[in-house]
Amino acid sequence: MTPFDPETTTFLIAGPVRIHPRVLRAMSMSSLNHRGDYFHGIVAEIRELLPVLFGAKGHQVVLTGSGTAGLESVYSSLVPRDGRTLVVTNGNFGERTDQIVRRYSSTVTTVSAAWGEPLPVAGVRAELDKGDVKAVCVVHNETSVGLVNDLAAIAPAVRASGALFLVDGISAVAGIPLPIEAWGVDAVVAGSQKGLAAPAGLALVHLSDRAVAALRPGTFYLDLAAHLKSLEKNDTPWTPAVPLFLALREALLLLREEGLEARLARTHRLAEATRSAVDALGLELFPDRRFASDTVTAVQNPDGMGDAELRKVLERQYNVLVQGGQGSLTGRIFRIGHMGIADWPDLLVTFAALERVLAKAGRGREPASSLRAIVERMP
Amino acid sequence: MTPFDPETTTFLIAGPVRIHPRVLRAMSMSSLNHRGDYFHGIVAEIRELLPVLFGAKGHQVVLTGSGTAGLESVYSSLVPRDGRTLVVTNGNFGERTDQIVRRYSSTVTTVSAAWGEPLPVAGVRAELDKGDVKAVCVVHNETSVGLVNDLAAIAPAVRASGALFLVDGISAVAGIPLPIEAWGVDAVVAGSQKGLAAPAGLALVHLSDRAVAALRPGTFYLDLAAHLKSLEKNDTPWTPAVPLFLALREALLLLREEGLEARLARTHRLAEATRSAVDALGLELFPDRRFASDTVTAVQNPDGMGDAELRKVLERQYNVLVQGGQGSLTGRIFRIGHMGIADWPDLLVTFAALERVLAKAGRGREPASSLRAIVERMP
Repeated sequence: MTPFDPETTTFLIAGPVRIHPRVLRAMSMSSLNHRGDYFHGIVAEIRELLPVLFGAKGHQVVLTGSGTAGLESVYSSLVPRDGRTLVVTNGNFGERTDQIVRRYSSTVTTVSAAWGEPLPVAGVRAELDKGDVKAVCVVHNETSVGLVNDLAAIAPAVRASGALFLVDGISAVAGIPLPIEAWGVDAVVAGSQKGLAAPAGLALVHLSDRAVAALRPGTFYLDLAAHLKSLEKNDTPWTPAVPLFLALREALLLLREEGLEARLARTHRLAEATRSAVDALGLELFPDRRFASDTVTAVQNPDGMGDAELRKVLERQYNVLVQGGQGSLTGRIFRIGHMGIADWPDLLVTFAALERVLAKAGRGREPASSLRAIVERMP
Repeated sequence: MTPFDPETTTFLIAGPVRIHPRVLRAMSMSSLNHRGDYFHGIVAEIRELLPVLFGAKGHQVVLTGSGTAGLESVYSSLVPRDGRTLVVTNGNFGERTDQIVRRYSSTVTTVSAAWGEPLPVAGVRAELDKGDVKAVCVVHNETSVGLVNDLAAIAPAVRASGALFLVDGISAVAGIPLPIEAWGVDAVVAGSQKGLAAPAGLALVHLSDRAVAALRPGTFYLDLAAHLKSLEKNDTPWTPAVPLFLALREALLLLREEGLEARLARTHRLAEATRSAVDALGLELFPDRRFASDTVTAVQNPDGMGDAELRKVLERQYNVLVQGGQGSLTGRIFRIGHMGIADWPDLLVTFAALERVLAKAGRGREPASSLRAIVERMP
């Protein structure tokens, strides 16, 4: 096999996603004075562009850190001291939210479903009915199991309860519709390396007016009030990751050029094609199809084929990168990311390789059946 | 004036510093699977190279975040619950340490000197003598006032007290000698964008065995124990800023090629040249010359010349970037950074421009006197 070349790899992990050359090149600008006019101008542009990402205006900040940093910024400063916090979990990232929230509150109620089960809507409503819930924390898209949580089903009840509605949108924003205003969401955390297709290393946070009014000091580095105050002057409280800000601006410009609605529609179309191709191969989705994610498709490994027989062969023999399962799902599922700037060629190459691997394992269907399913979904 | 071009700017702010083209180009590699073998290999290389940066082996982690994130990672997990924490301040960054530490302890004693005054050694010793000090937090190089704190003068007493010795080395590491083992330092925080000359956005933390033994949960995102555990597998607990890790590796390779001792010596030589050039212009250093920093030279503005008459003219007319003062020193001092890969051409251009600005303001000395001072210091 030729030496590893990330440029020619078919790269469909669940994020970081492939980065557009324009975005990559934006990072190679020489050092900038992060306290000078030129960089302030870049921050000003980013601020103007962030509503394109979130599909809503509001108070929006950029943090140098991963999505987890974004989550901690929100939970540490918005989880109430008095009153209950409700955390909903049905996968790895819901559990991470639970871990973070429990650092900042001792009155947490966790409503859990098994990994990959749909959002426990009735459980959430029942807890809200008990009263005294001041914040609800939920993951919009559970990357670990390829499942979208039906936030529309709980939004009215959360709203009616008066609780703050805090959403981990890391692998959802710019990939799955999240009507922030219609659902009354108070905080959304996005990651740079998912639907936006910028490099990893920045968290983007949207806050409602009432969230801003409720902010209290959390951690020092991730203090949202300090970030908001600095951003008013197109500045950051601490030294920003300058190259990542340059990349962020370029990725936001690309998103504006495509349009958020167009990117959501394209992502949905790719997801539909992926699911059809999975069907054509006789494979099974991991979550209930009604809640299958549009940014990450989780597929059950065929019986007897673990990572070594499937995913590793795709990588080593065909230079196709998809992602494995986490925790107890390791070797039991694989996940195909199709968000950001992923497109038809990525799907065609991935499924061609997947067909070949299955055929060689004596599990082939009619040749090119998954490719046909994809082609028929192309615009 | 020609349009702003960061490539041709003489860039001597107090960090971020100029980045080597090799380091810039390292960031333009396409997306990598941060959970794959190739990236694990990069992390392994970084781990092997970090002792070159710190001049010591130990437990060393890379955090996606600014230097402030590094500081919070250390203080939040090492400032003791029982017993006193001593914080020493004589500038802006000492005060920042004080702010962070006070989020995590209610028994903090601050030993302060005015901004730019030398380290209050007697005050530190007196507090240590009172007993019950479990941690001492001090900034090695006070970037805000161009002053190096004489840690050698307090190290034996800190050691004898048994307190943890926690050092903010952000603008010192790879610029000013910090013999970690000889001084018995337990934690050092470095920033990627200073002496190492990588892009901003990563904090590097060195911990001693006893610091690791004393770790307790601090913030979630910056949890040092979680980072150490992941690093054993050449992994990171949360998604790393992949391009910055690639740049970090390249900057560490450059540092190893030059050698830490050689970089320290070169930085010292540039600092001596800068101070001589300042003398030649009849300008005054801001701090006591005995404690003038080797990474950042702080110079008093001539009477009647504020930022608008001096620093802004350097920038607009000569494309030379130096840094202003912070807080009450705004317009009263300017700061020249000469760490990382800064070199003689940068100094020559900067002082030529500075001479010109002073001459036009009727404050000229013999033409080229500062340049002669620099040339005479060249190897």
